Amino acid sequence: MKPKLSIVKIGGNVIENKTELSKFLAVFSKIEGQKVLVHGGGKLATELGKKLGIESQLVGGRRITDAQSLDLITMVYGGLVNKKIVAELQANNCNAIGLSGADANTIQAHKRPVKDVDFGYVGDVDSVNAITISRLLEANLTPVFCAITHDQNGQLFNTNADTIASEIAIGMSEFYETTLNYCFEKKGVLKDVNDEDSVIKHINTTSYKTLLTQKVIADGMLPKLENCFNALNRNVHQVCIGNISMLAPESNLFTTITL
Amino acid sequence: MKPKLSIVKIGGNVIENKTELSKFLAVFSKIEGQKVLVHGGGKLATELGKKLGIESQLVGGRRITDAQSLDLITMVYGGLVNKKIVAELQANNCNAIGLSGADANTIQAHKRPVKDVDFGYVGDVDSVNAITISRLLEANLTPVFCAITHDQNGQLFNTNADTIASEIAIGMSEFYETTLNYCFEKKGVLKDVNDEDSVIKHINTTSYKTLLTQKVIADGMLPKLENCFNALNRNVHQVCIGNISMLAPESNLFTTITL
Repeated sequence: MKPKLSIVKIGGNVIENKTELSKFLAVFSKIEGQKVLVHGGGKLATELGKKLGIESQLVGGRRITDAQSLDLITMVYGGLVNKKIVAELQANNCNAIGLSGADANTIQAHKRPVKDVDFGYVGDVDSVNAITISRLLEANLTPVFCAITHDQNGQLFNTNADTIASEIAIGMSEFYETTLNYCFEKKGVLKDVNDEDSVIKHINTTSYKTLLTQKVIADGMLPKLENCFNALNRNVHQVCIGNISMLAPESNLFTTITL
Repeated sequence: MKPKLSIVKIGGNVIENKTELSKFLAVFSKIEGQKVLVHGGGKLATELGKKLGIESQLVGGRRITDAQSLDLITMVYGGLVNKKIVAELQANNCNAIGLSGADANTIQAHKRPVKDVDFGYVGDVDSVNAITISRLLEANLTPVFCAITHDQNGQLFNTNADTIASEIAIGMSEFYETTLNYCFEKKGVLKDVNDEDSVIKHINTTSYKTLLTQKVIADGMLPKLENCFNALNRNVHQVCIGNISMLAPESNLFTTITL
């Protein structure tokens, strides 16, 4: 039987709030067994950019990562946020090691091809080095990934943190029974968007189709769930969606997704 | 017999110059056997601070690391500089992994005690986790340290890069025959400061005393050499001082220091 591995992704809303982040890191530290953390960005880099007079460029509502923005992201997420998280996990007796995809060549990517829009230094993931990440886990280390990848030719890339988390889960499934946990502000996938407690506790391929027909799942939840089923179809054991409290052992109000 | 390990420290003058840095990283990548890189700071963080209106505080000519300066250092050296170096080493087929002292709890420190001056978030090294660093080396990884340490209670510290390099060399000497290489702008310790080629090729305890009496070694070189002999007295095999070219296998113009 494969050993278990939890991959947890936290978003910008937790990162930006010091109290929430501390609460999260205390809970994360207590997850039993081997684990990986992936942290998203949030507005910190944009805010620093504003102070420096670096405006984020948007094309058709989508953000472009130019050279200056990539430097900002590398500073803020690869440096400030990543090291602060690592230091705080260490204080919680969790032996964290901060990584970008360039470190130990853990995540290789290529520049997103230009079609209608040139997104700049945005990377699409090619491969995750599961052997190297396994070695770190076997040394009782807890990898903490920022959402930066590289192309092995010296170029760093900005990469979507949800994608990094799912690609790591997919890659690690060769050696581990993986659970991919998406932590966000809601308690899970909701039956009624106006009722915070209407969490759908379990979704599988069949019930997903019904939920789609009933239009219960729509808007921002659609790509998120497509991403989840993509991971499950590529050997991830299960995906969980919920807020921080889903990581506590006594928790039972969150959404579990399986095939 | 212990395996060999090279610890190389590069200073700010190399970091600040993109062409020089690329040259250095190409040479560093080709060093045979296991190696560790420690990079200093330079003016990059100060320059970013100026743009953000964060002035570096000086007391009696010595720099104070307040909370804002520590954030700057963590962003610029822990993030931007460290990740760029790692990505470029990867392009040179050197499997680099960027670390601060908080990562994998590799370097523990405490806040420098307040005597006449409160230096702020400046850390004095307590211990280097040689077992964890050895594990990374055994996994064929090349650790790349920025000059940041932590106290295991969640606090990061700014720490002198020369000190980090010598403490790593001292710590690793338990398992390795270590050579500590200080790369700077000169070809080595000079007999005549006005003659760039007057390199003293070898210094040992006896000749060091003579050089001191003759006042050949003075000013900035004094603490540097005291640091070197401190490392040698704590089991470091040898210390080399010179510019980038000393790392090339054919090089013979640099200073070697032994007991």
